[in-house]
Amino acid sequence: MTKTHFEPRNPDYADLIRDSYNNTGFGKTLGAELTVIEPGYVEMELPFRPELSQHHGFFQGGVIGALADYVGGYATYTLIEENDSILTVEYKINMMAPGAGKKLIGKGTVLRAGRRVTIARMDVYALQNDNSEVHIAAAQGTFMRMENKPDVAATIAKIQKTRIEN
Amino acid sequence: MTKTHFEPRNPDYADLIRDSYNNTGFGKTLGAELTVIEPGYVEMELPFRPELSQHHGFFQGGVIGALADYVGGYATYTLIEENDSILTVEYKINMMAPGAGKKLIGKGTVLRAGRRVTIARMDVYALQNDNSEVHIAAAQGTFMRMENKPDVAATIAKIQKTRIEN
Amino acid sequence: MTKTHFEPRNPDYADLIRDSYNNTGFGKTLGAELTVIEPGYVEMELPFRPELSQHHGFFQGGVIGALADYVGGYATYTLIEENDSILTVEYKINMMAPGAGKKLIGKGTVLRAGRRVTIARMDVYALQNDNSEVHIAAAQGTFMRMENKPDVAATIAKIQKTRIEN
Amino acid sequence: MTKTHFEPRNPDYADLIRDSYNNTGFGKTLGAELTVIEPGYVEMELPFRPELSQHHGFFQGGVIGALADYVGGYATYTLIEENDSILTVEYKINMMAPGAGKKLIGKGTVLRAGRRVTIARMDVYALQNDNSEVHIAAAQGTFMRMENKPDVAATIAKIQKTRIEN
Repeated sequence: MTKTHFEPRNPDYADLIRDSYNNTGFGKTLGAELTVIEPGYVEMELPFRPELSQHHGFFQGGVIGALADYVGGYATYTLIEENDSILTVEYKINMMAPGAGKKLIGKGTVLRAGRRVTIARMDVYALQNDNSEVHIAAAQGTFMRMENKPDVAATIAKIQKTRIEN
Repeated sequence: MTKTHFEPRNPDYADLIRDSYNNTGFGKTLGAELTVIEPGYVEMELPFRPELSQHHGFFQGGVIGALADYVGGYATYTLIEENDSILTVEYKINMMAPGAGKKLIGKGTVLRAGRRVTIARMDVYALQNDNSEVHIAAAQGTFMRMENKPDVAATIAKIQKTRIEN
Repeated sequence: MTKTHFEPRNPDYADLIRDSYNNTGFGKTLGAELTVIEPGYVEMELPFRPELSQHHGFFQGGVIGALADYVGGYATYTLIEENDSILTVEYKINMMAPGAGKKLIGKGTVLRAGRRVTIARMDVYALQNDNSEVHIAAAQGTFMRMENKPDVAATIAKIQKTRIEN
Repeated sequence: MTKTHFEPRNPDYADLIRDSYNNTGFGKTLGAELTVIEPGYVEMELPFRPELSQHHGFFQGGVIGALADYVGGYATYTLIEENDSILTVEYKINMMAPGAGKKLIGKGTVLRAGRRVTIARMDVYALQNDNSEVHIAAAQGTFMRMENKPDVAATIAKIQKTRIEN
């Protein structure tokens, strides 16, 4: 996966992303973890649980799609201003192999970060028992920066942390 | 939504689809309901729960995407043979408005059912308090018939039902 | 095809679209004709010529894709201000049947017209010898309004027409 | 661009691809050149001509989309049997920057080559006057192998060459 070279505009982008994911209902339902957060690049991992399985016992396609959407959106999040948030305009995903493995690893890479519109590629891998990664899904999406519309979940989390510290 | 005119090849297609959805882990996690199952056309409904929400308190995009994938796949399911199952090759989804509403309604319509490849359009609506439907997502996908690869979840469910009856 | 109900903001939208298409190099190379231009809905027709064919003698996929892109973009064009132009952000197209017929008919329908981003569905039909239409391609795209960036081809055409009239 | 590691099944894949492109009507209309043909990877170049331009004088989006479709399809072509041909099932393309440059360079890379279905990523670059490449479009597509349906254009070309040699 090519690492990208972008300059973040909000130094606290990693906190913003973790606060946004960890304080949302579906984030907790899915149960993924943000493992790499760099400018223009994000990785998330999601261990297998039966609650995430489809009719053949593998990760359900919707779970794979949700992970792809997250890593694309969050890769975009690393490059926005403090008071902005991100909207998924659209994405497309190819399921290339069954979601069979002990863990999914989603990798989102910004291809082009425009003033409003950002394009990212997202790839999902299934970690095998021998720790090799099988490339199970390839996606591409369009994300839009919402100017001066702060992320609600991240903002609440930040306020709560400030209160605890005081 | 245009109703389609297709001849099903498996008279028990509705049972197959319900058994497949209701006996999978992620199907239960999501908690949607199959409300319309007709040849080439399927509707599913998903009431709002905080467990499905994103950073602004609306239905998370991954949930909307998963619902779209399901109704496209199940619309395809209505037209296959008894011993076949369906694989999502790919889909593309545009998020057109926030997923704000008391319920999501997904509608999947087969555009073309080929011998192996089926193309479907999927639309997701958010039901408002006044019961109007806002068109929040538009999707299009490609689904592949897996010949003589029965749906495992549906098959197990069928066996269990037979045992109970006997 | 569902007709849409949109209010145009530029009364001369049809002239703008014709001037834009007819005065561009690739528009002439392709040789399509704008046959229906209504608010949020556009049709174009393209008669078969060997110059547009692929390896089996049918319309080449790139031609079908170009027609889909045009009708989606122009459906969006019908709803913008006089001094705006349109940019294709992205589109996705499914080729559902061979492009075999005496004429292609592209139909673009706006699903949602936002302030900046518009989503449209585009369908391409192949006209048969018995004048029936075969639905050969289904597409969906995202188009962006470029505020105060007038369409160059249409502007030049308008200036030339004004000169001729005076 | 990551080079891929695939074993071709038809040693004459490069001839097949050149014969297919160069003997089709739209191939000639477009006027691109096949510059790199390797197992699972193809590059094509298309110099600018006014006949390929849109309303702002740049390469038209349909031209960019057609080039992306070609390099994805031909990357798939490098891996099929002698008597097979390829069908584009679908593709999705993001236009990331204006098609401004003296030449387009399309690069198609196979991500996964299945028995029937192949997934490829396609990227289009615009060559600038200083010979730098601007990444103007990113695409992803699904291609299907048509078993024992030889490419008609390539087959005719091969017969004609054989006649000339004799």
